[in-house]
Amino acid sequence: MEMARIGATANGGCNRQALTDGDIAARTLFTEWSKAAGCTVRVDSIGNLFVRRPGRDDTLPAVLTGSHLDTQPTGGKFDGIYGVLAGLEVIEALNSSRVETTHPVEVGVWCNEEGCRFPAAMMGSAVWADRMPLGAAHELADRDGITVRDALKRARITVDAPVSRQPVKAAFETHIEQGPVLERQARTIGIVTGVQHMSRHEVVIEGLEAHAGTTPMDQRRDPVRVLADILPALYRAAEERRPDGRLTIGIIEALPGSPNTVPGRVRFTVDIRHPQDLDFRSLRQEVEQIVRAALASHRRNGLVRCVWEASAVRFNAQCIEAVRTAAARLGYPAAEIVSGAGQDSVNTSYVVPTGIIFIPCAGGLSHNEAESASKADLEAGANVLLHAILSVAE
Amino acid sequence: MEMARIGATANGGCNRQALTDGDIAARTLFTEWSKAAGCTVRVDSIGNLFVRRPGRDDTLPAVLTGSHLDTQPTGGKFDGIYGVLAGLEVIEALNSSRVETTHPVEVGVWCNEEGCRFPAAMMGSAVWADRMPLGAAHELADRDGITVRDALKRARITVDAPVSRQPVKAAFETHIEQGPVLERQARTIGIVTGVQHMSRHEVVIEGLEAHAGTTPMDQRRDPVRVLADILPALYRAAEERRPDGRLTIGIIEALPGSPNTVPGRVRFTVDIRHPQDLDFRSLRQEVEQIVRAALASHRRNGLVRCVWEASAVRFNAQCIEAVRTAAARLGYPAAEIVSGAGQDSVNTSYVVPTGIIFIPCAGGLSHNEAESASKADLEAGANVLLHAILSVAE
Repeated sequence: MEMARIGATANGGCNRQALTDGDIAARTLFTEWSKAAGCTVRVDSIGNLFVRRPGRDDTLPAVLTGSHLDTQPTGGKFDGIYGVLAGLEVIEALNSSRVETTHPVEVGVWCNEEGCRFPAAMMGSAVWADRMPLGAAHELADRDGITVRDALKRARITVDAPVSRQPVKAAFETHIEQGPVLERQARTIGIVTGVQHMSRHEVVIEGLEAHAGTTPMDQRRDPVRVLADILPALYRAAEERRPDGRLTIGIIEALPGSPNTVPGRVRFTVDIRHPQDLDFRSLRQEVEQIVRAALASHRRNGLVRCVWEASAVRFNAQCIEAVRTAAARLGYPAAEIVSGAGQDSVNTSYVVPTGIIFIPCAGGLSHNEAESASKADLEAGANVLLHAILSVAE
Repeated sequence: MEMARIGATANGGCNRQALTDGDIAARTLFTEWSKAAGCTVRVDSIGNLFVRRPGRDDTLPAVLTGSHLDTQPTGGKFDGIYGVLAGLEVIEALNSSRVETTHPVEVGVWCNEEGCRFPAAMMGSAVWADRMPLGAAHELADRDGITVRDALKRARITVDAPVSRQPVKAAFETHIEQGPVLERQARTIGIVTGVQHMSRHEVVIEGLEAHAGTTPMDQRRDPVRVLADILPALYRAAEERRPDGRLTIGIIEALPGSPNTVPGRVRFTVDIRHPQDLDFRSLRQEVEQIVRAALASHRRNGLVRCVWEASAVRFNAQCIEAVRTAAARLGYPAAEIVSGAGQDSVNTSYVVPTGIIFIPCAGGLSHNEAESASKADLEAGANVLLHAILSVAE
């Protein structure tokens, strides 16, 4: 909890956005702890920080774990931080039990996972995994116009060298679930098999502004009338794909927004998620068909378009198996789970065998100052991480 | 169209909000025209302006017509102005045909009908009809803190005397329909039988903010899901009361309004109108029941409450008959119509026999710089007004 004091907020959360003074102080504290644990520390040109405990054969690929230390502006004490500290716990446990591993063990602190100050989530791991060019990441600027490059230099990080990816045998990340499933199922460990498909859509229904008092119903071109046809159909489409399909309407606006004017336009967003490729595609297609059919039947202009999407990720079978075996050996109630949110491990999974270990968080709350996890679950996750790492690092 | 040059806007409309320089200039121009037509002019303490053509027996109650000269900030050239100028046209027609009426004829210019600068629509007629105390009207202030009293003084209007209502035998107002009904039915004259019931409601559905990716559908408390049940039911309720029932959802908001967060709250407005008392009450009751039933079936907190209402008005039978007879005698296609919007005549109807004559406006547009009406229809309305006035003034 010493880490949580850095950037602590009045409501019990943390505000340590990437490369702010708080984030830099957190990285410095973590570096001190790692050196005290006998590790070497290396920082690459995008600000990823790697702590290394040498292996018996230090030329072998490392077993990598870690997550991130940066937070949302009103973030919690666990999202990311837990995965970094659990990694250091593993190293300290290996030290105190004097276990030498054949492969070196590394703990990574990925730079700017949250993407709230510099607008690219999972930035450091994306550059490391060759999914974003270093130059493009350096050019990202915050609202005050400060670039990642400037912010790295200010944190005394050398930015000129290319990012060279160290050889990695396998990567594991421990993380709070950020959802309510494990808690509801009373499971301690989530064996994360992958990350679901996600897409975000914008829908616009055009109408014609009219006086609420003087315009008869049959002479209106009311876009809310079309919305009334679309909404139930969208929820039905999601419900037909229970329990995995997810559909969220996060923004709805009627314009101009006057109580006695029939709106001239309605705009809303649809966020669609599903772990299975076929189901995801069919849900997406049905959403678009529902909107187009409603526009056509009311003879209205409008649009439905995808503004963002990310394909699903399936984690490495051996990494998944390593987590399952560790949980079983330690006797923790565990369940397979698909992550609903993106993680740095999505990026590492494209270039090295990767797995994630979830633990429950209270009420499924995350990106929230009230984020919390039980001591027992935090410890269980670290134990599973230790055993999973040992199983591949020998 | 000389009047429309005062406060003319770039898009062909008018901006002459109550007691601004533009409104004062319009009143001055109208006063000049009225004096040139041989009338006396009187202004009361709330700024209502009355132009009088004496009757053969000038002690008899006057026959009153008129409307307002103030406009919305992006208003048109006809809303209100037409009713005032049609009144003066009647007086000039009586003059040129040398007709003496038994009763005096007056044209009223009601002060601040629009209520957009000083926040009380139909203010002047409300004070005149004893529906608003003079003192309360004087205290109304615009956004700069200028009160009606200050604005009247600035226009050199004496504000100290009580408002004394002159005896009136009957009142007629000519006005554009502000809706599309007459145009669609190809009628020149609307015989306005009354003004419909109106009420405005606020609905809140409470939910719980949640992550769009990590929260399964059956573990959400999504207020948009409840909205999806409510909207079609509301439109069904309105459609069951065709063609007179009107229901408008002008504002919809989902909060906090992020595409990947399940909203924690939905808020929307419902505007309900119906000319018939029983149908209005049953529609209103059904709207409230639909919302309460949906909240209950989803076990959600929320509310539906009426924030404003105005009862229907039924105009005087003899005034309605006078309009009908005049239109028939002149051979104009006419139809009975209920006004969807409020007018100064709503206030006068509480204290003197009142009727309204509607003419069509292009596309039903009003409160809009593109507001327009045809020369033939404008003339027809003035002719019907002349004959209706003659029928009661002799």
